[in-house]
Amino acid sequence: MSNLTISRRGIAMPESPIRKLVPYAEKAKARGTKVYHLNIGQPDIATPPSIMKAVADAHLRVLEYSHSAGNESYRRKLADYYKRVGIDVDYSDILITTGGSEAIIFGFMACFDAGDEVIIPEPFYANYNGFAVEAGVKVVPVPSAIETGFALPPVADFEKLITEKTKAIIICNPNNPTGYLYSREEMETLKEIVLKHNLYLFSDEAYREFCYEGEHFSAMQLQGAEENVVLMDTISKRYSACGARIGAFVTKNKILLQTVLKFAQARLSPPGLAQILGEAATDLPEDYFDETKAEYKKRRDVLVKRLNAMEGVFCPNPGGAFYAMAKLPVKSSEDFCQWLLEEFSYEGQTVMMAPAPGFYATKGLGNDEVRLAYVLNADDIEKAMDCLEVALKEYGKLNPKH
Amino acid sequence: MSNLTISRRGIAMPESPIRKLVPYAEKAKARGTKVYHLNIGQPDIATPPSIMKAVADAHLRVLEYSHSAGNESYRRKLADYYKRVGIDVDYSDILITTGGSEAIIFGFMACFDAGDEVIIPEPFYANYNGFAVEAGVKVVPVPSAIETGFALPPVADFEKLITEKTKAIIICNPNNPTGYLYSREEMETLKEIVLKHNLYLFSDEAYREFCYEGEHFSAMQLQGAEENVVLMDTISKRYSACGARIGAFVTKNKILLQTVLKFAQARLSPPGLAQILGEAATDLPEDYFDETKAEYKKRRDVLVKRLNAMEGVFCPNPGGAFYAMAKLPVKSSEDFCQWLLEEFSYEGQTVMMAPAPGFYATKGLGNDEVRLAYVLNADDIEKAMDCLEVALKEYGKLNPKH
Repeated sequence: MSNLTISRRGIAMPESPIRKLVPYAEKAKARGTKVYHLNIGQPDIATPPSIMKAVADAHLRVLEYSHSAGNESYRRKLADYYKRVGIDVDYSDILITTGGSEAIIFGFMACFDAGDEVIIPEPFYANYNGFAVEAGVKVVPVPSAIETGFALPPVADFEKLITEKTKAIIICNPNNPTGYLYSREEMETLKEIVLKHNLYLFSDEAYREFCYEGEHFSAMQLQGAEENVVLMDTISKRYSACGARIGAFVTKNKILLQTVLKFAQARLSPPGLAQILGEAATDLPEDYFDETKAEYKKRRDVLVKRLNAMEGVFCPNPGGAFYAMAKLPVKSSEDFCQWLLEEFSYEGQTVMMAPAPGFYATKGLGNDEVRLAYVLNADDIEKAMDCLEVALKEYGKLNPKH
Repeated sequence: MSNLTISRRGIAMPESPIRKLVPYAEKAKARGTKVYHLNIGQPDIATPPSIMKAVADAHLRVLEYSHSAGNESYRRKLADYYKRVGIDVDYSDILITTGGSEAIIFGFMACFDAGDEVIIPEPFYANYNGFAVEAGVKVVPVPSAIETGFALPPVADFEKLITEKTKAIIICNPNNPTGYLYSREEMETLKEIVLKHNLYLFSDEAYREFCYEGEHFSAMQLQGAEENVVLMDTISKRYSACGARIGAFVTKNKILLQTVLKFAQARLSPPGLAQILGEAATDLPEDYFDETKAEYKKRRDVLVKRLNAMEGVFCPNPGGAFYAMAKLPVKSSEDFCQWLLEEFSYEGQTVMMAPAPGFYATKGLGNDEVRLAYVLNADDIEKAMDCLEVALKEYGKLNPKH
């Protein structure tokens, strides 16, 4: 046997909480049970054929390294896209990353040292935990509540958590996993906090285009916080191109961007074929999102209505993204979600959801909550809800105490 | 002004030493001077059209996330490729990464903690410094010498550097920047050291196919060091597909691979389009490399012959990769390389090379050395060498003390 050691951060690195249930889903499928996947944010929407065609038509002789900050032609067209959605940035404020994930890692690496703290409203995107472990950073959660639809917690809740080690507040808007869309007022509140306490504001806006109640207000639109704000972006959800791995790190803070460029140089360049795809996406017609947005809204309406019609279930209406959080009449959503895959089926079908505890940093929160991604068509969502409705009744009989 | 801080690691992060001269090259071009780029490892060889076509022909409806470890179909075919080159691995030993860069970062993150030490024969690939800063790891260089062609330093040189903090030895074989091809005996020597001192052996084999003197012997072929060895690989150079950003982390150490998978899950998946390209590349005919290898060998022969024919220049014959290190009759290769771009031209042309100090960790080493990448055709290399020959004479007159 070897005495070779795994690093402490390697041991601390969390497993994907969303993927924990995958073996049970595979077994269910092996038994012939159809599984409705509401557990992951992989849209079923077609990637626009025109942007796939742009890659096919590029006919590069040599697939070369691009500039470490991404192709300038793409950065310029991306700046135009941002201007069209009301975000006034120059191409020189943009660094193209390998997915939104790399934008977040770069931000952590460039802004924080080991032992630094970042405040994140919880529940939050689970992979922030992983990035925090990589950078040695402590995540300090500030709880938001399902009763308010996961609105921004009060300023006082933030302020009591701010220490001299606090370096940033991180938000995701509209939010994954809650679907909550922060209002302009909430964004202004965040601005006041970060200016007062000299913090970065990292804003993950992967779902910008998918807002169903009101307009999206970007952190980049906050006046007077230009040095503080970093926009972490991605084309994954916007154009249903999750596999492209193209994102962006956007900031007007030049010293920070120059620092991030050094991290970008170490990994040489972002993916080349996918940059062509990303650039082509900036040429999609203005009404491209109308259809997708209408489709997601329809699905959301079906999902939320069905959930709230079930006994003991509460699902606040999410204003954006394609996620909903629901409170279920169960003691442990982890046990329930596993049971759905291991033991339950209705007309040969079952449903897979993400147990909410994986999105909370505070132990004990979210035990009776699940996240549902409405990435299936409305008919399939109806069938998945049929399953869930029957399942909750059956599970309630088996576990009468809840 | 803002009081927002950049992290210590962000400040410590090195700039790319290879790119430092880029502004001078741009100015030279603006003056109308033709610049022969021997400074970077961007091959001019065409990416095989069949693998580009595979991407165009894939016709995916949705460009989805792949498995975090990469597509199983690709991993299986990559395992077959490894078997064909004498490396016996199963697909389950392979995790597909975003370029070789990510394989190296994953290794650093999963195996080392802040304060740990890694021993690397110098000169070495400059970006190891960046990855070390990201992971908080100390690079301990063990000098190799141009006089021996940069052969592996003696065991005693390694052993005197090994402390309780030493966690790994990192090699690149064939080597970037030296072109040195480690012999089987040298690899066995490394095995003895890592087994005796319980270290990882990270082996960066980006240039495996390009060996001109003798056979490549992979670290994965070392018997009895299966737990210690990690192969860091990439398709960038092999198929002239640097922009694809597809690499691999390969090890039979299951605990390590499971740990790396957690880092891979946090970033979701490697690039999807480029995985199709990588998979198609495993279907290229067996003789695919013959032509490319013959081409690089021809270039190397021209380059090395021309260099050694110049007064005061010494260039050991590199056994692999597409780099050569040369000792020049100059005091500072950094000054000389800048002068070549800023002040020199011969028949309207000049040459760009990488000053060697960027590849050394020990201050003062490599001051009179440069790295030349033979990524241009033989005719262009002849012309570049014409420039260099004239330049050295002219520079010698201007700086008579050297």
